[in-house]
Amino acid sequence: MKNNHAFSDAEKQAVYRAIGQRRDVRRFRSEPIDDDILQRILQAAAHAPSVGYMQPWNFLIIRDATVRKEIHDAFVVANNEAKEMFEGERKDAYAALKLEGITESALNICITCDRSRFGKVILGRTHQPDMDLYSSVCAVQNLWLAARAEGVGVGWVSIIKAEDLQSILRLPENVVPIAYLCVGYTDSFASEPELKTYGWLPEIPLEDLIFYDSWGKTKK
Amino acid sequence: MKNNHAFSDAEKQAVYRAIGQRRDVRRFRSEPIDDDILQRILQAAAHAPSVGYMQPWNFLIIRDATVRKEIHDAFVVANNEAKEMFEGERKDAYAALKLEGITESALNICITCDRSRFGKVILGRTHQPDMDLYSSVCAVQNLWLAARAEGVGVGWVSIIKAEDLQSILRLPENVVPIAYLCVGYTDSFASEPELKTYGWLPEIPLEDLIFYDSWGKTKK
Repeated sequence: MKNNHAFSDAEKQAVYRAIGQRRDVRRFRSEPIDDDILQRILQAAAHAPSVGYMQPWNFLIIRDATVRKEIHDAFVVANNEAKEMFEGERKDAYAALKLEGITESALNICITCDRSRFGKVILGRTHQPDMDLYSSVCAVQNLWLAARAEGVGVGWVSIIKAEDLQSILRLPENVVPIAYLCVGYTDSFASEPELKTYGWLPEIPLEDLIFYDSWGKTKK
Repeated sequence: MKNNHAFSDAEKQAVYRAIGQRRDVRRFRSEPIDDDILQRILQAAAHAPSVGYMQPWNFLIIRDATVRKEIHDAFVVANNEAKEMFEGERKDAYAALKLEGITESALNICITCDRSRFGKVILGRTHQPDMDLYSSVCAVQNLWLAARAEGVGVGWVSIIKAEDLQSILRLPENVVPIAYLCVGYTDSFASEPELKTYGWLPEIPLEDLIFYDSWGKTKK
């Protein structure tokens, strides 16, 4: 039976291009992002799958310089702590990495998860309590891919304490910050992940990651 | 300055089509999926962003009927428990929903997260310990979008206890099951999420989800 639902080859190529050329961007130009582009990438995020259709996400668009400075200060504290967790050459290598573009990017977006949205019992979250968090992560990935298609860079800053994000952004107790994103135009999208280029960790071949029917079984 | 990194309009459309037409599929045809398509969607998953480039994911391809029956049995137990958490009409509505296609889909894929891969200290996970879990979720979303482009349906089954997945699939202690996916061809991709169509929960307008600079601020 013919598969009538497949995209054309050109469309497939475009989807795989977005997936393959998406990068974690840390170097930004300062030009603003047009509102229509911003709306499209937020709409893409809101089209993510969500457990029980709870749509647990919110999108905080952060442009204010004072807020960004507070976020950046919190990053610096965490990043210094993080550096001390590595040893020897690895510590120097860590210190040399540029890991954020909080103040120089066009804007920042914090994607959150409201764990109490639509009440306590959510279809599909009854037995896996983290499913709402995962829904918001899917929204992050949708936004990231849409931004790549628009030529807009996105970098995820995770080296910051959740409680700092919580207090600086005045998030209610039931709202969890999932991703703090730097968003803006960039001079270049690297051809491969920077940490691969730097030799921080090696790429794992796909075939080594696939098992069949149960863990560790490598034969079909 | 010109944005040289944006995709063509046709490419952007294709990316937004995948994002907009992706659905949680629960009704499958049984035709097998060609190996080259399966490889492409797994490669898409492995192109997800991962914290510190740790690539914490594995992909278990499940075709074996016995394993699938065990998974389905575990789903049935959880689903009966879940049904009892709803009341009145809502319980009946829940019971009428088809929420999985474990045995009739072409195959199942479990995407996992190996929390101990590359050691304890992972760049970017130092202050947000769940970042590795989120990386594997990004892999799920990449796979889902690639599958949509290929005309292949994907449904995420979360109504099952993690410990049942762990024991049936023989996952080591340090490996967390993130998503159990039913994967296969389908007669139709619905035009909108089924739970929206059924009136289970309403769609939240995008503008109600956006704040500026801090939680609750609706003015730019």
